[in-house]
Amino acid sequence: MSKEVRAWGATSPEKTEQITLTRRAPDDEDVAIDIKYAGICHTDIHTVRQEWGPVTLPLVVGHETTGVVSAVGKNVTKFKVGDHVGVGTMVNSCRKCDDCKEGAEQYCSGHIVTYGAKDPKDGSITQGGYSQYIVVDQAFVLSIPKNLPLDKAAPLLCAGISMFSPLNHWKAGPGKKVGIIGFGGLGHIGVKLAKAMGCEVTVFSQTENKKELGLKFGADEYIATSDLQVFDGLKRKFDIIINTVCAKIPMDLYLSSLRRDGTLVDVGLSKQGLQLSAFTIALRRVNLAGSLVGGIAETQKMLDLCGEKQIFPEIEVIPASYIDEAYERVLKSQVKFRFVIDVSTM
Amino acid sequence: MSKEVRAWGATSPEKTEQITLTRRAPDDEDVAIDIKYAGICHTDIHTVRQEWGPVTLPLVVGHETTGVVSAVGKNVTKFKVGDHVGVGTMVNSCRKCDDCKEGAEQYCSGHIVTYGAKDPKDGSITQGGYSQYIVVDQAFVLSIPKNLPLDKAAPLLCAGISMFSPLNHWKAGPGKKVGIIGFGGLGHIGVKLAKAMGCEVTVFSQTENKKELGLKFGADEYIATSDLQVFDGLKRKFDIIINTVCAKIPMDLYLSSLRRDGTLVDVGLSKQGLQLSAFTIALRRVNLAGSLVGGIAETQKMLDLCGEKQIFPEIEVIPASYIDEAYERVLKSQVKFRFVIDVSTM
Repeated sequence: MSKEVRAWGATSPEKTEQITLTRRAPDDEDVAIDIKYAGICHTDIHTVRQEWGPVTLPLVVGHETTGVVSAVGKNVTKFKVGDHVGVGTMVNSCRKCDDCKEGAEQYCSGHIVTYGAKDPKDGSITQGGYSQYIVVDQAFVLSIPKNLPLDKAAPLLCAGISMFSPLNHWKAGPGKKVGIIGFGGLGHIGVKLAKAMGCEVTVFSQTENKKELGLKFGADEYIATSDLQVFDGLKRKFDIIINTVCAKIPMDLYLSSLRRDGTLVDVGLSKQGLQLSAFTIALRRVNLAGSLVGGIAETQKMLDLCGEKQIFPEIEVIPASYIDEAYERVLKSQVKFRFVIDVSTM
Repeated sequence: MSKEVRAWGATSPEKTEQITLTRRAPDDEDVAIDIKYAGICHTDIHTVRQEWGPVTLPLVVGHETTGVVSAVGKNVTKFKVGDHVGVGTMVNSCRKCDDCKEGAEQYCSGHIVTYGAKDPKDGSITQGGYSQYIVVDQAFVLSIPKNLPLDKAAPLLCAGISMFSPLNHWKAGPGKKVGIIGFGGLGHIGVKLAKAMGCEVTVFSQTENKKELGLKFGADEYIATSDLQVFDGLKRKFDIIINTVCAKIPMDLYLSSLRRDGTLVDVGLSKQGLQLSAFTIALRRVNLAGSLVGGIAETQKMLDLCGEKQIFPEIEVIPASYIDEAYERVLKSQVKFRFVIDVSTM
């Protein structure tokens, strides 16, 4: 049966408030989930503020969702009632293309994002995780290891996988030197993940304000880039650099800090675009690449690693009524390091 | 013994004329070469016109050189008198770093370019191939298969390897779709090489002027990009795109034409730099990379392939007295497809 549930939706670009949402009845492949926690991602803010294009309001955002299975469809084999589960940025895809077959569903041109997309199951607009309950096809539900607290696990489903996927794809591991630009929601999880994968990790931040925390979370080095001369000593050092900053960075200096065949992966998605010198990338045969969250199997691999190595994002748990204020603090980088909404407060 | 030889050197940024050059006596590792042909590369022009920085004039340029061995040092094992050989863009490197050990000498920070660099053997400024004779360490001399004419082989040593190296590195081969932007000196060799490697090849050129030649040289498709709507039908098509154009290109449209994990390799080296959208590369996890000529073993591999498959650049053989005029025609793209100086005219 379909179900009316409480949720917090953006009713205007600037305001989030309690609304009622109708969730479809689970079909044979669906998992019904009582949501416990929902992380706040910068993408939620870009979306409701229509910075990435128009959306239909009200819209319930949230794609870092954890909870407990409350019911399953009759064909569901992967989950049972009571399991701890998560839902990330996707709830479906075409399942037929090479991207889907190769576990890279996030690049499938038919993938269905968790909020604001047309759901092929019932034609409705998908509504995200800032709500008490969600119904998702089992193929897009993740298993959360029991030793990962559900509140701390939530940000792994977007911030975490956005860092794990490029680390995994570009073969981070023992002996590899990884640089992470920006030490916020994504950056701090990136440090913990890269360290757990055996890499030598350097954080690049504008100031030294968070240096102590950076080293505490496992960074081998923490470099303040306000003085660009620091790059003089970094030539040809890194195998992988991941940029999490959504603003202009000194791109050529970072590219020159890569070893031959190294890659700078941008996940910062600045709307200003990226500029670089053709000579910088030619003289060392280095790559500039992009990366978008991660595939389902890859996300599961990360969650299992986080359970095994006890890796948790740093979070501040908030009530639903605090969402708008939390957004303002995210925009001012006044969060250490990720807000997570306690759904019991809805 | 050192030797005085005739050469054509740039005596000013705009003028090339006959000069006399002193070549060192071959040491135990050196190969002495009677030069027969020297290709004209756009880099020669950038260099003498000081567009890439100041140089000491007079300077003899030329790094697409073929000839016949006239003498060898006592430790030379790779070559004997009478062998057909070539010298490309490098004449030495440190031989100790990872780049050198891995056959990527062109990325060694101590590699010595064929003209305008300080030669570690005698401290002189290296002088290039627009001359009758050159002395080069055997480790940087290439063997030219006897079934490759020396005039046609010359452009392979820079233009050819600049295309072969990215094709080889990014694994061009049967089943791979390759796009080549620009159909000039580099582009036309790229088509022939990619085709010989078994790829499906598409040429992107501003107009259809050279379409017939493109198809004749093996391109499967020849696309005029003056109408940008042609890109609508190309989304997610290519595994590798190589840009040979030294001017602004519609970068995001090309990047969107790549398959997931595809790479656009820039060898055009526009001084204007490269601009792209962060979203374009993220949404498909595609790469923008640079590439610089190729390593010595890789160049030999290409020459052997060209001998085996009978791949020749299209050339126009000119006397030395025509160099300045040839430069003007290169700058106006009025060459099909590469000028080669007949050194017997010096």
